[in-house]
Amino acid sequence: MPVESTLTPGDTVLAAGRRIADRSGETPVMTSPEILDELLGAALFFKCEQLQHTGSFKLRGASHAVSCCRMTARAWPRIPPAITARPWPAQLRCAAFAADVVMPECAVASKVDNVRRYGGQVHFCEPTQAGREAGPGRPGRAGVLTAVPPYDDDHIIAGQGTAARWNCSSRCPDLDAIIAPVGGGGLLAGTALAALTRDRHRPQVIAAEPAGADDRDALKLAAGRVEDHRPDTIADGLRALVGERNLAIIAEHVEHVVAVEEDDIIEAMDLLWSRLKQVIEPSGAVSLAGLKKLAGQLPGQRVGVILSGGNLDVAPLLATLR
Amino acid sequence: MPVESTLTPGDTVLAAGRRIADRSGETPVMTSPEILDELLGAALFFKCEQLQHTGSFKLRGASHAVSCCRMTARAWPRIPPAITARPWPAQLRCAAFAADVVMPECAVASKVDNVRRYGGQVHFCEPTQAGREAGPGRPGRAGVLTAVPPYDDDHIIAGQGTAARWNCSSRCPDLDAIIAPVGGGGLLAGTALAALTRDRHRPQVIAAEPAGADDRDALKLAAGRVEDHRPDTIADGLRALVGERNLAIIAEHVEHVVAVEEDDIIEAMDLLWSRLKQVIEPSGAVSLAGLKKLAGQLPGQRVGVILSGGNLDVAPLLATLR
Repeated sequence: MPVESTLTPGDTVLAAGRRIADRSGETPVMTSPEILDELLGAALFFKCEQLQHTGSFKLRGASHAVSCCRMTARAWPRIPPAITARPWPAQLRCAAFAADVVMPECAVASKVDNVRRYGGQVHFCEPTQAGREAGPGRPGRAGVLTAVPPYDDDHIIAGQGTAARWNCSSRCPDLDAIIAPVGGGGLLAGTALAALTRDRHRPQVIAAEPAGADDRDALKLAAGRVEDHRPDTIADGLRALVGERNLAIIAEHVEHVVAVEEDDIIEAMDLLWSRLKQVIEPSGAVSLAGLKKLAGQLPGQRVGVILSGGNLDVAPLLATLR
Repeated sequence: MPVESTLTPGDTVLAAGRRIADRSGETPVMTSPEILDELLGAALFFKCEQLQHTGSFKLRGASHAVSCCRMTARAWPRIPPAITARPWPAQLRCAAFAADVVMPECAVASKVDNVRRYGGQVHFCEPTQAGREAGPGRPGRAGVLTAVPPYDDDHIIAGQGTAARWNCSSRCPDLDAIIAPVGGGGLLAGTALAALTRDRHRPQVIAAEPAGADDRDALKLAAGRVEDHRPDTIADGLRALVGERNLAIIAEHVEHVVAVEEDDIIEAMDLLWSRLKQVIEPSGAVSLAGLKKLAGQLPGQRVGVILSGGNLDVAPLLATLR
């Protein structure tokens, strides 16, 4: 399903935003002028995707891809269901879709619970890149389902890009830079396309990635590192390899990729939890961790920081209070 | 400093709101219709005081009391400074005030850090009721300072009551009930006064208190329990005894007091952290814990739940991720 050819790449994000307006929520922008701006030496605008329905930006791409399936379904009513690696919310349960969701065996329990809560059927795969790509061993209804890849897909990329629309908030001026985490590259590529829509003042786009999930394809942009992909990071949302479509967009439009260590991620979580009072999962804190690594390189600039999600198991953490 | 006699008790909260509008932020209301409403069997409207500057509602009462001192200071410029058990924000540092803040020795480190970050001078007292009332052993400049009690004070009560103004949010209809935590009783008494301002549809006011900080004065309203006061609860913000002024208001206007166990508090924190993605301290989760105890008693009602603060040391919790 190619993106409509009459649209520029940036326009696809705007079109996706209109298409999913009724099923993914607008998320707020938070600021911390006295503490975090002071600490980082820049004016920060945090895009709060942890407050999206389902707790992460991923609803955006999934909703968009499904809405495109839905259009297909109207034409060919016998091929409506979709198979995807993303959960989506209750309002879509009634939309004549069956959601079969492929997740790695080691997926965080709260994420598996959420898929089931919203009516999805979970299929586990091996927690490797090959496993992710092969999907479930026994696909069940897969023969009659439409497959939606988790990130290497134009509809997914355009949908994820809607998270990077700061202009919707009147509190936020034009940005000089946007920093987003990179795993499979859906959010990052979408963010890069979203940045293209700003004719007057186009922000540079910066990626942040856990060093433990270093991804030769993405990181070579920055440092030429080429290593085997053996993801080992608490940022469970960023363990995938960058997709092909994603890489093409990233190579063209992303200025810089910063690698962060595990301790950087936890330190960034501490800042976000204690200063913004927001529960941000490790993957969601990677952009702030990356920004800290760049400290001093964006002096006084207006920087958009995408907090991509807040889904983690808090029970073991809270158990330490007992 | 008595409350102006021309005002009704409810009016004092409205007047306090106008007086502190430029120094305490309006806090948002969050909802969770699909998950928490479903679980609790009521329509819940969470007032997010963890998003107040300084991370708790306490700025409201402190700002209000200080603004009253300030008026005095204009008349008698040699008596401006204040001594209080509440921190306040940077914008007040420049307001010709010296903030000397009395805190118990066992105060949570993040709270002590915050007072110092905002320019306050910390004086530790013994972590007992007698210690709290005696204040610091060596008061330093206390001889020339104006003392502001932490809760047993009309200005503090009226200021804290401004947290209970849901009407400011257009998303929120008239409430049938409001539930607030009780420690010294500043927030609860203020909430009770705020409820009086609703002529058309006056919500019942419910208090929630940790069983480990049971307070015979408050609890006897509900169950006639009379025990020695030996606070032992993780809800560090609720260990104080209810003040005299506070008790008078609570006895007249609060319908019900619910006691919650420590496990109830942690379970409520889990719900708020994982569903609303908000870092809520133990004291701040006590109202939801109380509401859970009342499950089924408020069927389908519109209930305002005050999340009173989000200041806790998250570093030890996050350390478990390493």
